[in-house]
Amino acid sequence: MEKCSHGQEIRTTKRDEKEKKELMNRLKRIEGQVRGIQKMIEDDRYCVDILIQMSAIQAALKKVGFQLLERHTNHCVREAIEAGTGDEAIKELMEVFKQFSK
Amino acid sequence: MEKCSHGQEIRTTKRDEKEKKELMNRLKRIEGQVRGIQKMIEDDRYCVDILIQMSAIQAALKKVGFQLLERHTNHCVREAIEAGTGDEAIKELMEVFKQFSK
Amino acid sequence: MEKCSHGQEIRTTKRDEKEKKELMNRLKRIEGQVRGIQKMIEDDRYCVDILIQMSAIQAALKKVGFQLLERHTNHCVREAIEAGTGDEAIKELMEVFKQFSK
Amino acid sequence: MEKCSHGQEIRTTKRDEKEKKELMNRLKRIEGQVRGIQKMIEDDRYCVDILIQMSAIQAALKKVGFQLLERHTNHCVREAIEAGTGDEAIKELMEVFKQFSK
Repeated sequence: MEKCSHGQEIRTTKRDEKEKKELMNRLKRIEGQVRGIQKMIEDDRYCVDILIQMSAIQAALKKVGFQLLERHTNHCVREAIEAGTGDEAIKELMEVFKQFSK
Repeated sequence: MEKCSHGQEIRTTKRDEKEKKELMNRLKRIEGQVRGIQKMIEDDRYCVDILIQMSAIQAALKKVGFQLLERHTNHCVREAIEAGTGDEAIKELMEVFKQFSK
Repeated sequence: MEKCSHGQEIRTTKRDEKEKKELMNRLKRIEGQVRGIQKMIEDDRYCVDILIQMSAIQAALKKVGFQLLERHTNHCVREAIEAGTGDEAIKELMEVFKQFSK
Repeated sequence: MEKCSHGQEIRTTKRDEKEKKELMNRLKRIEGQVRGIQKMIEDDRYCVDILIQMSAIQAALKKVGFQLLERHTNHCVREAIEAGTGDEAIKELMEVFKQFSK
């Protein structure tokens, strides 16, 4: 089980290469989509067509977000509950969920 | 009043330089934020800290979206209503509202 | 075209009976769904099952909201644009849209 | 620790009276707000004013939802993790997260 270390200032969590690769591919695609929007602005493209592309980016971001949320719950929150320090981890989980579902 | 031309395959709408510059600055910043998330993944950063950054990107995207939406309503939808072809423009506006508020 | 009167303190807009009936039916159903949630709480029903019902109420509310938004744009915003007072009506439309898409 | 029983068809979870009372008060208020919207429709009230009230209902529903979500995570998900059956409970929690943040 990956160790979620909270002690130091910068909190870390060890991810395996497969998971990292998958997240990076998605984020690279999102980066490309953002550049695509820039191009549409330069080309004076119709607002509605741009807005449809932006909704696609929001959906892609949400997908990455839920992947991270599920991973976090499965690893760090579970670890904390098993170690008897679940209260804080659950409170943090709820805060990030509220933030993320705005 | 900018002309929103729908005739051809690729719909366009003429934006002034000031507006373009503002939109591009915001989109460049969002692009940088997405690269920042990629760095956090590479550095095995804690999921919750990454999710908080992702919420900031979603908020920034929403801001750009609302800016485009207001501009579109003020120009293209208004033009269509004044030209007596408002029905289709309003219908399209509602579709984009729904898409964008998911 | 229904008259959207803004002069007095309480702003009104004349709706036809068919539209009123449809809106009221939906709102009565939503009222019933809220009472259904109360019953589930009394019966100590499992949180996840209650949350799924609550999502259904949120979706139903959103539908009514979009119906009102479309009607408002088609009547009051269109009227204001045709009367040359579109700026304020569009600004108000964007404010309500931001509020509604939180 | 309340027992979250999944065995039978209707899943239940025992809530204490204080929590029930708080949830019921909120839900009664929401029920009253929905009836308030009905009255506004009958009185031909301006769409924007109705939409603002509807956003208040959505916010109130979201608050009740987060309360249930936090309680569920603190009780049923924690119980499942401690009993070594966390996988299913976490999967279910993510499904409800997704549903609820639409």
